[in-house]
Amino acid sequence: MPAIAVDAMGGERAPEAVVQGVAAVSLQTDIDCVLVGDEARLQPLLEATAYNPERIAIMHASEAIDLQEDPRAAARYKRNKASLFVALREVAQGRCAAAVSAGNPGAAIAASLRELTLLPGVAKVAMASVYPRAAEAPGQDPLALALDVGATVRCTAEELVRFAVMGSTYARVISRVAEPRVALLNMGRDPLQGDEALTTAHRRLRDLPGVNFVGNIEGHELTSGRADVVVCEGLIGNIVLKLLESVANMAVDLTTSAAAAQRTWRWRAGMAIMASGTDRLRALADYASYGGAPILGFEQVFIKAHARSQPEAIANAVKVAAKAARDGLVPALKAALADV
Amino acid sequence: MPAIAVDAMGGERAPEAVVQGVAAVSLQTDIDCVLVGDEARLQPLLEATAYNPERIAIMHASEAIDLQEDPRAAARYKRNKASLFVALREVAQGRCAAAVSAGNPGAAIAASLRELTLLPGVAKVAMASVYPRAAEAPGQDPLALALDVGATVRCTAEELVRFAVMGSTYARVISRVAEPRVALLNMGRDPLQGDEALTTAHRRLRDLPGVNFVGNIEGHELTSGRADVVVCEGLIGNIVLKLLESVANMAVDLTTSAAAAQRTWRWRAGMAIMASGTDRLRALADYASYGGAPILGFEQVFIKAHARSQPEAIANAVKVAAKAARDGLVPALKAALADV
Repeated sequence: MPAIAVDAMGGERAPEAVVQGVAAVSLQTDIDCVLVGDEARLQPLLEATAYNPERIAIMHASEAIDLQEDPRAAARYKRNKASLFVALREVAQGRCAAAVSAGNPGAAIAASLRELTLLPGVAKVAMASVYPRAAEAPGQDPLALALDVGATVRCTAEELVRFAVMGSTYARVISRVAEPRVALLNMGRDPLQGDEALTTAHRRLRDLPGVNFVGNIEGHELTSGRADVVVCEGLIGNIVLKLLESVANMAVDLTTSAAAAQRTWRWRAGMAIMASGTDRLRALADYASYGGAPILGFEQVFIKAHARSQPEAIANAVKVAAKAARDGLVPALKAALADV
Repeated sequence: MPAIAVDAMGGERAPEAVVQGVAAVSLQTDIDCVLVGDEARLQPLLEATAYNPERIAIMHASEAIDLQEDPRAAARYKRNKASLFVALREVAQGRCAAAVSAGNPGAAIAASLRELTLLPGVAKVAMASVYPRAAEAPGQDPLALALDVGATVRCTAEELVRFAVMGSTYARVISRVAEPRVALLNMGRDPLQGDEALTTAHRRLRDLPGVNFVGNIEGHELTSGRADVVVCEGLIGNIVLKLLESVANMAVDLTTSAAAAQRTWRWRAGMAIMASGTDRLRALADYASYGGAPILGFEQVFIKAHARSQPEAIANAVKVAAKAARDGLVPALKAALADV
């Protein structure tokens, strides 16, 4: 398999965490990686860590896109030389098998729309994200996939149906759940709830053979095991995922920071005793370590990792990208979309 | 002041919790209440509790609307005799000062649209809800007001602006914050984020004198103190509020149920030691006790309490309704909307 192109300059902890994550992959697996970024910074970072030189190459890109940067401006002025764009072009031109970036999410969407090829019949793409929820069935993944979380602000019924098909296909390929449960995020279980886009999408998904559609899901059910794939328009997905993430951080604050801030023997003793409880809280916020999720709708595999990714999360995102490429995500998406 | 009409049959714990809440109000305040519902059930419940008979009257209504009932069917077949409709008609016809119900939210919206009068210039109404967040400024309320949470699925820019004006006015009258901070729920702070309705609403709110508009708010900022009034379309508000509520319940589960389920000395000892931490968690879910929030857009005051309201929450909802009526919420709404 060709290498995975990794945007070494994207993310809050880039390039250090990216280099360390890719170095770990080179020692643990047979996955080849191309680190795309400022060679003068990457080479010394790589040399400072343990890695397998046969599995990692560096490709120079002189510019980087900051997390706070306006995506439109970045796409306009940095297209030629920014590491994100260079990495995506390596994939678009077939020299790499998939791309990974933990950088600016808006820029990732803008860059993928410029550099990658839309799948047949797809006009709008979906950025997916994973979040932790209760597993209810045996073998169910501890994470659910939500899409779209910000690539397409408002969606037609057709677009929601395609997002459902693509999300379901991705979950099947990556998590090896044979029939992922797909739900439509709405304000009630009643199929007539929501606007026309939602009621039409509900009807079409109910009648679509290849999708295990379990109906509408409501806000309070998101953290339950009812659905493996949650489908919504980008505006809603973006708000919901950011809220879920802030709540997870709040849970960690309550255990970690509060203990540190209060520094009383009572808190420390309580923390030690309640380890099982705090583990549950902490698990809520640990999902950054699970790696990334795809931007779906392209002929190429592109995994977006969380901007706060630590080396472990980067390594997981690279493994997910390699798995998607090796296990035929794109042919599976094409086959599934042909039935819509 | 005329009495507050209370739907005695609405809510998970109705009529018991409603009767007890109203009885408490009769002993604590000079607010008169009319309990609307099945007289044969209400009278014995009232007699079984301490109350001031000079402050409470019972008005018979032979039917009740269940929480699981289809709101459209309820509005069609139970309009004449259901306690919710009878209570709202008492207000619409000027015999009562305001209405309170903890019943079926969909039915509350349907019934208010049938029985109450829209304010001049208002075509769509907004159901508000409160939720707990961090207070950042001195004197800031520990609760924020979100609207719409389900009355109007999709909103035009004009509707979002009116919701902002009405929510801001309500917060000013009820919480006595002189200039509540109003924000638009969106996928980014950039005024150009979102669709045209959101960008237009952003521009109009920025230029509107009577509103203290602080800009767009993102999902992860909802639990911060950045905004006192969060404005969004009903579909988004519904999903977000249900999610926030489920997370609050999860926090309580972690402390209360987990301790009960595990019943180990370790958990119990840990719980006792960490009391200050669990209090913070518990506060997250206690907001049901804060009473209700209004359905805004009418010439009448209608406070919707949470379906799970305990007597304390009912009592608080009645006090909020009386305050809104006494302090001139409706004239204030008219004045504010005239400037839009």
